[in-house]
Amino acid sequence: MSGKLFIIGLGPGPAHWIVPEAIEALEQVSDIIGYGPYVARIAPRPDQTVHGSDNRVEIDRAVHALELVQAGKKVAVVSGGDPGVFAMAAAVLEAVEAGPQTWRALDIHIVPGISAMQAAAARLGAPLGHDFCAISLSDNLKPWSIIEKRLMAAAQGDFVISLYNPASKARPNRIFEAFALLGMIKDADTPVAFARAVGRPDEQLHLTTLGEADLKRVDMSTLVIIGSSESRWIIRPQGAPWLLTPRSYGAAS
Amino acid sequence: MSGKLFIIGLGPGPAHWIVPEAIEALEQVSDIIGYGPYVARIAPRPDQTVHGSDNRVEIDRAVHALELVQAGKKVAVVSGGDPGVFAMAAAVLEAVEAGPQTWRALDIHIVPGISAMQAAAARLGAPLGHDFCAISLSDNLKPWSIIEKRLMAAAQGDFVISLYNPASKARPNRIFEAFALLGMIKDADTPVAFARAVGRPDEQLHLTTLGEADLKRVDMSTLVIIGSSESRWIIRPQGAPWLLTPRSYGAAS
Repeated sequence: MSGKLFIIGLGPGPAHWIVPEAIEALEQVSDIIGYGPYVARIAPRPDQTVHGSDNRVEIDRAVHALELVQAGKKVAVVSGGDPGVFAMAAAVLEAVEAGPQTWRALDIHIVPGISAMQAAAARLGAPLGHDFCAISLSDNLKPWSIIEKRLMAAAQGDFVISLYNPASKARPNRIFEAFALLGMIKDADTPVAFARAVGRPDEQLHLTTLGEADLKRVDMSTLVIIGSSESRWIIRPQGAPWLLTPRSYGAAS
Repeated sequence: MSGKLFIIGLGPGPAHWIVPEAIEALEQVSDIIGYGPYVARIAPRPDQTVHGSDNRVEIDRAVHALELVQAGKKVAVVSGGDPGVFAMAAAVLEAVEAGPQTWRALDIHIVPGISAMQAAAARLGAPLGHDFCAISLSDNLKPWSIIEKRLMAAAQGDFVISLYNPASKARPNRIFEAFALLGMIKDADTPVAFARAVGRPDEQLHLTTLGEADLKRVDMSTLVIIGSSESRWIIRPQGAPWLLTPRSYGAAS
């Protein structure tokens, strides 16, 4: 029997943001592996084995999946969002790289998904309408100094910035430090949006500016978007303003 | 009758990368507007009117859509990829901003989609496994100087870089200029991937390095990914190597 591993993204939450290829892949597997809240979104068949786990052990999940595939099973590793963006695709390939040579011959197929910044952007208007970058504020696996360097570079390049993993119990102050850094380069009236749990029942959008942002609102379910110098609000007669980063820039607009 | 505008992304090509919300939206509309090759992917019902157009007139398409919605129609504007990433969401909101005040009260709903860099990443391994940025090399609407500034900042911040719109008949040399700039800061052996038409019948992946890249291969259907200093290949016994940007960085790895 020939094993196969699917690395799947379930998107930010609702079923209508899961691509059909992910559903097709889930139908083919005998084993489903992922962080508890993600696998809880799936309704497994009685003949499928679900292996939920704690979020802190991504590499353990990856190794477990690869062992099952090596033994001939068809397995799905599920992430939220896009598995390629700060998620399980990298964890699995790190395990492949560090594992036995035979793992490099395994059949691995990655299915893309909607990432949190895209869901947030769809609700907000068009904040990612022009050049942007995505930075994880998690310093579990990288030194804070490289995060600082990237924040400074992103501000100097006048990118729109999406911040993933902006806060946690273990590092509640990182988002304060990040905003302090960005505030040294970017205007205080730069548009900022906190997009929390977009697509889920507790979705919440909060629109503010770099200078006035209440950073205590930011938690691990929040995606933070910080505009470029061109980003601006479009005020509407009812409802929140749209956030627009136009396709044009300065003199060329 | 109350009009509504859906701004929809069809993803990079295949139907299995279109989110269900996009299909649901298309079922609700009387009018479908988009660049010819994108609307050609849709099988309209006999009662739906399809307005194809040339790619150069994004704002005209946006204005046309908003006029129809103002007149009470339900309309879909379709993009490839994600409409929020270098696509129609920004064009429509620019038209709203510049148009009559009444357009600001229109019901507009944006549906996210899989963007080209995500499809490319899924095929390549996990190149976007860590901090990355997306830059359009098109200088139709922005000065080349801001693109240069962003390329330099992206290199200095050691981001993985996705380049959209890397070449065209009107500006065949921009990709050469971009690589010359990046080569001043980044190592010549930095992994580079050209991902052309991913998900479509003429899909082609080409793996190379910053120093050895044959830039004549790059056309407007190519998404270019340039690694960070941590990006690396995982050689496989058969098939192309995986491209991995690990979640860890330097000393913290």
